Amino acid sequence: MTPPNEVDGPLPTDYEIAQSTEMEPIWELVEPWGLGLDDLQYFGSYTAKVKHDAIDRLREQAEDRPNNLVLVTGMTPTPKGEGKTVTTVGLGQTLNHIGEEAMIAIREPSLGPVFGVKGGAAGGGRSQVLPMEEINLHFTGDLHALTSAHNLIAAMLDAKISQGDELDIDVNDVSWPRAIDMNDRVLRETVVGLGGKTGGTPRENQFLLTAASELMAVLCMASGLGDLKERVARIIVAYDTDGEPITVDDIEATGAVTMLLRDAIKPNVVQTIEGTPAFVHGGPFANIAHGTNSLMADKAAFGMADYLVTEAGFGSDLGAEKFLNIVCRLGEMEPNAVVLVSSVRALKYHGENMWPADYDDIDAAGTGAVERGLENLDKHVENLQKFGVPVVVAVNRFPDDSDEEVNVVLDHCRDELGVAAAESTVFENGSEGGVDLAERVVEAVESGEADYAPLYEDEDSIKEKIHTVATEVYGADGVKYTGGADRDIERMEELGFGDFPVCMSKTFHSLSDDASKKGAPTGWELEIREVYPSAGAGFLVALTGDVLTLPGLPSDPAAAGMDIDADGDISGLF
Amino acid sequence: MTPPNEVDGPLPTDYEIAQSTEMEPIWELVEPWGLGLDDLQYFGSYTAKVKHDAIDRLREQAEDRPNNLVLVTGMTPTPKGEGKTVTTVGLGQTLNHIGEEAMIAIREPSLGPVFGVKGGAAGGGRSQVLPMEEINLHFTGDLHALTSAHNLIAAMLDAKISQGDELDIDVNDVSWPRAIDMNDRVLRETVVGLGGKTGGTPRENQFLLTAASELMAVLCMASGLGDLKERVARIIVAYDTDGEPITVDDIEATGAVTMLLRDAIKPNVVQTIEGTPAFVHGGPFANIAHGTNSLMADKAAFGMADYLVTEAGFGSDLGAEKFLNIVCRLGEMEPNAVVLVSSVRALKYHGENMWPADYDDIDAAGTGAVERGLENLDKHVENLQKFGVPVVVAVNRFPDDSDEEVNVVLDHCRDELGVAAAESTVFENGSEGGVDLAERVVEAVESGEADYAPLYEDEDSIKEKIHTVATEVYGADGVKYTGGADRDIERMEELGFGDFPVCMSKTFHSLSDDASKKGAPTGWELEIREVYPSAGAGFLVALTGDVLTLPGLPSDPAAAGMDIDADGDISGLF
Repeated sequence: MTPPNEVDGPLPTDYEIAQSTEMEPIWELVEPWGLGLDDLQYFGSYTAKVKHDAIDRLREQAEDRPNNLVLVTGMTPTPKGEGKTVTTVGLGQTLNHIGEEAMIAIREPSLGPVFGVKGGAAGGGRSQVLPMEEINLHFTGDLHALTSAHNLIAAMLDAKISQGDELDIDVNDVSWPRAIDMNDRVLRETVVGLGGKTGGTPRENQFLLTAASELMAVLCMASGLGDLKERVARIIVAYDTDGEPITVDDIEATGAVTMLLRDAIKPNVVQTIEGTPAFVHGGPFANIAHGTNSLMADKAAFGMADYLVTEAGFGSDLGAEKFLNIVCRLGEMEPNAVVLVSSVRALKYHGENMWPADYDDIDAAGTGAVERGLENLDKHVENLQKFGVPVVVAVNRFPDDSDEEVNVVLDHCRDELGVAAAESTVFENGSEGGVDLAERVVEAVESGEADYAPLYEDEDSIKEKIHTVATEVYGADGVKYTGGADRDIERMEELGFGDFPVCMSKTFHSLSDDASKKGAPTGWELEIREVYPSAGAGFLVALTGDVLTLPGLPSDPAAAGMDIDADGDISGLF
Repeated sequence: MTPPNEVDGPLPTDYEIAQSTEMEPIWELVEPWGLGLDDLQYFGSYTAKVKHDAIDRLREQAEDRPNNLVLVTGMTPTPKGEGKTVTTVGLGQTLNHIGEEAMIAIREPSLGPVFGVKGGAAGGGRSQVLPMEEINLHFTGDLHALTSAHNLIAAMLDAKISQGDELDIDVNDVSWPRAIDMNDRVLRETVVGLGGKTGGTPRENQFLLTAASELMAVLCMASGLGDLKERVARIIVAYDTDGEPITVDDIEATGAVTMLLRDAIKPNVVQTIEGTPAFVHGGPFANIAHGTNSLMADKAAFGMADYLVTEAGFGSDLGAEKFLNIVCRLGEMEPNAVVLVSSVRALKYHGENMWPADYDDIDAAGTGAVERGLENLDKHVENLQKFGVPVVVAVNRFPDDSDEEVNVVLDHCRDELGVAAAESTVFENGSEGGVDLAERVVEAVESGEADYAPLYEDEDSIKEKIHTVATEVYGADGVKYTGGADRDIERMEELGFGDFPVCMSKTFHSLSDDASKKGAPTGWELEIREVYPSAGAGFLVALTGDVLTLPGLPSDPAAAGMDIDADGDISGLF
């Protein structure tokens, strides 16, 4: 969420802007982009899923198109976010405004954060996707389908455990948690199966946010319904008393789980406030999962337009690193440019070494704080350049930012880092506010400078991969393995997962694994405490420090400020 | 589920019949019934929600129509069900077939039972609602919205508890559980809030099936969005240390919860296999909740047709008793006839005093068993007649039933009970198989014999109301109150809920509170162990014996037999 404009009087809320925008029926909107009436499965007039036949056709069409891939990422964010989705939507709109053909692909919001701190997650101001209230609430039901499918696996697994099965499941080695799409801290650690014999077998159980479920990753990595089913079948849910994996297929849940996901696997297409088509599909978090929308959406978009603008969650150390090391590797994509979103506020936040709770005091900080904060920006630029992709820094300008502050950033990027940079006011002005940025992006893409390569090879050992990310991206001196991490890694190698890429689970509040360290921390070691397989998704997950897989509600949750009147008009959803 | 026809070779499965039926676009189908293109919110071409404006208009139109209300209920069921939904759908189709105008209103399936024992719940054979696979899976997301809304209340409540609130909530007197739409026995009794201070306050927590949530009852009793919000606000979630109720409004969740339900409150309209429009909306279970679809659907249907055929869950002791004592009272409706669905199999089941596990041996029982089972049917007829509504007994004929067996039932009803009776083969034959039944129903309605009255008055004391249902409907000698039930009742009276009707929670396997007792048990006392308010729904709930609010999966769950292929074709969903 971006604060209201205090200069020209208050901007209308995101919801008010959305309500005052006349949308085009989605079938009319996408028709010039190559999708016909029968290619869509409708949810009202403004939201549709794209059918499998059409996806296949678009994939073929993509072979004759440029497939220009622009990734939007950000510096280490403040508690309010730096406007990455706003910039993604705004850049997509502006590319079309200046005569290119561009599609947008972003993640689906998760109800948990919507009701927690964050409010809506559909962009904002004059750069949002519509219908924002539906996208932010139940949308096409994908998150609900994933939650149900996740918990069906859990119920079938516990039924096997308590009804005495032939699989010989080790009740102390169950790796499949339960899932909920709600920030509900008391479900993080629970004991289930109480109440006597009919209540099942007592054991510890965790709930995680649906966005952190392996099923979400599986959905985002799958190439179609058949591939989805194969991936679901491979998911490891527990180990037997000999330490051998028990899969979803072993507990006979593959068919029913895939059936529950038969619509969720189809990408959702909607429109931006300026009528640019956007895929909003899949929503893995970037701190605890891989953090980018579905590959199916990306691949379809390449068949519809020359440019695809997509977003990766949090900073270059999280969503972007995973997009570049994992998603592009497994999905066989090559990015042509990366946009790094920064803001004066975020630079001050790093420059002042602030705690999230002090964020409201940020306006008091001066230009000196901006300058001191640049070390965080510099490290993100450096990280992205290591992948061989040209970087364009976007300064997402807020109404209170002074010209002097903005110029500190622009000059630093151009003169000291030698990278392209542009300010962006797409929140307030839509595509009128993104022309300079869009032109820099087109230049970067057309320069042909991109020479993308991931930072490690499949054949590198698991520890080498982790070491590479820790030292090259996070700026750590090295890695220490605690708890059962060494044993986990041995097991992964024994199970034949040694050539998987590694999805790191790390705090988003810092480049390091210590949320309180701002800027670009040096002189520290990354701690890995657990490594487990996402066999369905095709990667390993390495847990660092204390990363919450289920956030809680704050003492004053966003939900408490939300309302709906008897006519159905919503307030408080931003 | 009705078994396949073993006489003429196997009938195609419900899914195959559904797939081979050409559906009409829903906007074309409902147009002659008074709904226009703009009255609908679409979910694909064959499912829509009816907008509030249209509901209001239909309610007005209902004032000039006959409002003939036909309730379908059943005798005490076998584990496989007696075909009540099949009969409801078939009767609705047949009424149109013989020249009447009839709408159907039934409940939405719940995923839990779909994956457990029961399979689909959209009727079957040639009397089902379509698209059956969508209705049985996520449909329009109503159950998911209710689950999310339920768990948002829980998360906001626990946030208040663990972050030290001004409400002084008694952590040992929290009445709001969590909800899940999955048969998952290990969630019945849990401990949440473990893992140290950041994990919240440890306490016992139950999960119940979404279909048993008070929110489901609230949705079904609400007259519109404004009324829904008022009901949500009144829901009691806990008590403070002085024993005073804490409501949803007190924890500031009213607005966000109502917002999550803004689409769920709108009735869903679909079509039967013969093109009769059907509302499928709301799905409370009848053993642990009130067991009938939404009042909004009923009221809208009266504006579209002369007849409304609706169904109440389980036997006359459960769904029908609640429909007649609670729903018609609060919703100001008067039924004109009741159809009591029986089957030769169910009569044998009672006549042989069978256990559910022995059900597969039922074919071996002879005509004598049918005759011995009639005492169960007789009691259900007697129960319904007490409400002053004419009864028509339907014998839902299965392929293996002999003429002799069927005639035992028909003759008994006509000659000994003096009630109308007809066999029905709507499963196999659609409306061709329901003509006799439909004509008996029209006769009953047109006779004008109905003189409906609930069995107790608002002013009766809580114990008088419970006593009336126990003795008049269940056939008990009296009622005993155990545990805290006496104290609960005092509290309800102090809180001003003394004039609420009482929703009894009782096993569906027997007319009594003992699941093993078949037939029409006498010489027993009903045990009430807890009474609590559904302040939002507007009734009290009285718990008897051991009623599960969250079923478990059997050792061979229906889910294990379900599958989907790479083309999206489903199997195993019946």
